[in-house]
Amino acid sequence: MRVGIVGATGAVGRELVDVLGRRAFPVTSLRLFASARSAGTKTKTPFGEVEIEEFSDAAVRDLDLALLAVSGDFAKAHAPKMVEAGVTVVDNSSAFRLHDNVPLVVPEVNASAIGPARLIANPNCTTAILVVALEPLRQAFGLKRVIVSTYQAASGAGAEGMAELERETRRVLVDGAKPQAEVFRWPLAFNVIPQIDVFQPNGYTKEEMKVVWESRKIMGMPDLPISCTAVRIPTMRVHAEAVTIETERPVTPETAREVLRRAAGVKVVDDPEHGLYPMPINATGQDDIEAGRIRANPVFGDHGLDFFLCGDQLLKGAALNAVQIAERLPGLARKAA
Amino acid sequence: MRVGIVGATGAVGRELVDVLGRRAFPVTSLRLFASARSAGTKTKTPFGEVEIEEFSDAAVRDLDLALLAVSGDFAKAHAPKMVEAGVTVVDNSSAFRLHDNVPLVVPEVNASAIGPARLIANPNCTTAILVVALEPLRQAFGLKRVIVSTYQAASGAGAEGMAELERETRRVLVDGAKPQAEVFRWPLAFNVIPQIDVFQPNGYTKEEMKVVWESRKIMGMPDLPISCTAVRIPTMRVHAEAVTIETERPVTPETAREVLRRAAGVKVVDDPEHGLYPMPINATGQDDIEAGRIRANPVFGDHGLDFFLCGDQLLKGAALNAVQIAERLPGLARKAA
Repeated sequence: MRVGIVGATGAVGRELVDVLGRRAFPVTSLRLFASARSAGTKTKTPFGEVEIEEFSDAAVRDLDLALLAVSGDFAKAHAPKMVEAGVTVVDNSSAFRLHDNVPLVVPEVNASAIGPARLIANPNCTTAILVVALEPLRQAFGLKRVIVSTYQAASGAGAEGMAELERETRRVLVDGAKPQAEVFRWPLAFNVIPQIDVFQPNGYTKEEMKVVWESRKIMGMPDLPISCTAVRIPTMRVHAEAVTIETERPVTPETAREVLRRAAGVKVVDDPEHGLYPMPINATGQDDIEAGRIRANPVFGDHGLDFFLCGDQLLKGAALNAVQIAERLPGLARKAA
Repeated sequence: MRVGIVGATGAVGRELVDVLGRRAFPVTSLRLFASARSAGTKTKTPFGEVEIEEFSDAAVRDLDLALLAVSGDFAKAHAPKMVEAGVTVVDNSSAFRLHDNVPLVVPEVNASAIGPARLIANPNCTTAILVVALEPLRQAFGLKRVIVSTYQAASGAGAEGMAELERETRRVLVDGAKPQAEVFRWPLAFNVIPQIDVFQPNGYTKEEMKVVWESRKIMGMPDLPISCTAVRIPTMRVHAEAVTIETERPVTPETAREVLRRAAGVKVVDDPEHGLYPMPINATGQDDIEAGRIRANPVFGDHGLDFFLCGDQLLKGAALNAVQIAERLPGLARKAA
């Protein structure tokens, strides 16, 4: 299969190359596209050395599959042309996620939504990590209310975000100077920023509303009462989430733990006695999201549950989920066979 | 007034000296007590140079007021003897907080609870920061449910915690080595640890249950449904809290903002359009807690409210609140006059 990655030099683009390789995706040719600035650079991949090409609509026309790790504006401008040219597109941006005729997919939850679509949207990172744990709990106990607070890593702002956190932390510790901010709105080193993406008229940020809108669409619960507080913290690439749910039917930590143990894409890490619970230092580079701190929340009587999630923002939150979608594209599977 | 600080060389002890000075507390003599290791060291204070003394029950007998910044075990062993000797004690530890005959006080909320008590408990830092905002909202709208997720700084583990975070962050960035952990259970640099204090049989940590138990006692709501997820993150000395409440009566962000603007000890920082909301970089060293991100939470219909708090863990979360309690001790106020 002729696969192209658009936005190949970013944090997600680089992970896409890696994930395609270690999952042995049936790549016959891999092409990497970026801006003119990077074009001509050669890079080693699991599929041999590849020279980065400057993106153009013409250049990507003969791909079978394009994985997009670009901005929403870029995706809006170019993805439809690719689809028209016969390319199947998995888009990591928010551009098409809420379009009625574009499936928004987390394969563990709604793989069947892919159908014959040739443009599939990859959800927001926080959403992808959340619904992998939420869906099995919904199936087992029903969902009445969901309240999420996030602890989001610098990688959510791409390679530049991670570089800024590292550089500015160094500036504080080594130079004893005040940290600066360019990628983030405020300095992130030793700080907490309760704003990710722009504010909406209802006082929530767009990141927070993405979690609301996208979780509802992926789980097929258009009216689910769900709220989010999205907070950037000084970690590198794993998002953590403190989740409180009210269920339709009674729930216990034991039954919830059992449900999550059987769930695809979830690793239960929940042994408080031995200090084991989800943490970024362990979840980094892991495909499965970690779920732990599973406990009854008496605020909702015997229908309340609290848990804590950690997921690699660049993997399940982005590149891994995109490749998992691609693995399930029926047309491509046939073509590749 | 003859004032002594026990545990004077710790992070809270040092803040106590500073707060007494800048609030012009009526100190006639200031004595500083610590372990034998620090005894003999001279330290500059707003009340002149003071030589640190080794603590003993005999040494503190003739104080009027003792401010304790020591462990719960130490407080349990020595505070009752001080009270017996005629010393009024404000204890920062958890030793007596839930004792029926010991007032647990956040002056903005329940100053009147002090009464004639000679042993007063200072609450857990997360609780103190929370109830300053929660109480005025309770008075205005009633409280039906409270759900809190915290973002707690290294200072909660004292000066050693802050030093470890700094040292281990440097180890990662400068030496390119793996971070170590001694004070914290796991390395905190670029990590998130969803455990503070020990686990309870119900799956919550003691820190989380302190927020539950102490908030109920301070606000006089013994049955308030309230839950907490307490998380240590790599910041230095400000705790942040994402709070969701369900109120008894309808609430709007506008009315809630107005209520919090009038509340003592609260500074409303809530101008999303200009990127203004509570953040550790601004709340560090500030007496008032910052409240912002105030918005309606539709998960609870028109009875839901979300907000975000930041408070200096060493000030309102510890030293400042202790001195504010001392300022309201009626007996002492008379003695000092």
